[in-house]
Amino acid sequence: MYKVYGDMLSGNCYKIKLIMNFLEIEHEWIHIDILTSETHMDSFRMMNPNARIPVLKINEGKYLWESNAILNYLAQDTIYLPTDRYEKSIALQWQFFEQYSHEPYIATARYIKKYLGLPKNREGEYLSKQEGGHKALSLMEEQLKKSKFFLGDKPTIADICLYAYTHVAEEGGFSLAEYRNIQRWFSDFVLIPGYVKMDRENV
Amino acid sequence: MYKVYGDMLSGNCYKIKLIMNFLEIEHEWIHIDILTSETHMDSFRMMNPNARIPVLKINEGKYLWESNAILNYLAQDTIYLPTDRYEKSIALQWQFFEQYSHEPYIATARYIKKYLGLPKNREGEYLSKQEGGHKALSLMEEQLKKSKFFLGDKPTIADICLYAYTHVAEEGGFSLAEYRNIQRWFSDFVLIPGYVKMDRENV
Repeated sequence: MYKVYGDMLSGNCYKIKLIMNFLEIEHEWIHIDILTSETHMDSFRMMNPNARIPVLKINEGKYLWESNAILNYLAQDTIYLPTDRYEKSIALQWQFFEQYSHEPYIATARYIKKYLGLPKNREGEYLSKQEGGHKALSLMEEQLKKSKFFLGDKPTIADICLYAYTHVAEEGGFSLAEYRNIQRWFSDFVLIPGYVKMDRENV
Repeated sequence: MYKVYGDMLSGNCYKIKLIMNFLEIEHEWIHIDILTSETHMDSFRMMNPNARIPVLKINEGKYLWESNAILNYLAQDTIYLPTDRYEKSIALQWQFFEQYSHEPYIATARYIKKYLGLPKNREGEYLSKQEGGHKALSLMEEQLKKSKFFLGDKPTIADICLYAYTHVAEEGGFSLAEYRNIQRWFSDFVLIPGYVKMDRENV
């Protein structure tokens, strides 16, 4: 059985929870606390030397890290990953967009605000994230004007990847009021069978 | 015939040049000047609304952006992309690592130093990139202690992706003297048939 090492407050981990639920994949979830630096322990770095969650344990000694690589692995041969060469590459395009042009702004602003409580010494960094975050949201809005999901009528791992931090962007100070198509996409996304909410507080 | 819109001084574009050469794919290279904001012109944003190079034009109206998505597209069904599900995901893992944990430090420091001439007002940012850059290099060094290339004995798109900015890391102020396995990997990489150097100055 798959083991997932993660924290359900993290959008990157939530991506894995979503695909596991959409595909009804049996798995064990092992909570890792990033605020107490559990990812820096030797036992964790043995699984992922980059000391980040989530990590997928496939079996003894066989690990995979980077949330979007895990999404591609789990979605192979399912309806969440197109088989057409171009379509599959467009799904990847959005995932790389998410990691480079979206997550570093939207997830980081949320982390500073929600996890750290917006301390004075990180206020400048927090504010500097707003422009890039809105740029990413505008680009998503444009695409979602043209299609129901990112690749057309059906959800794929591109949607799972982008939903994770976008739907909690307001926790990073990004108002979504003007992004009508993103809101419409949220309402379509939650209808996917197996949808599960993101945990809002660790228990 | 494929068209590539890019700048050969950019590591992200160099990745595409390398795979095109390794696979002997005929293509036309169209130079885009990032320093004069050519990527922000309407004609460019029509191809990539995110206003970044490189862009691959497959045919009329069919574009692909994000360098690593393009690598996956071009490498499909070739020796540069494993077919095994796990191996293929590990190649992706390294590519997401590159975009999130490597490029923002190593390429950005290089950009500030080499392209912008290390102006006073960006010195703090430049210095702040050093720690993360060395962290990424150390992690690569550990992997290259264990295997000739990132996924074993043969080069894949994981190597192409990571080679692009690593081999010019010293231009971003990162000394590679201590990274013996990275240097050994460089010397193996340049032996790949079709290897071409990165342009060092635009003509």
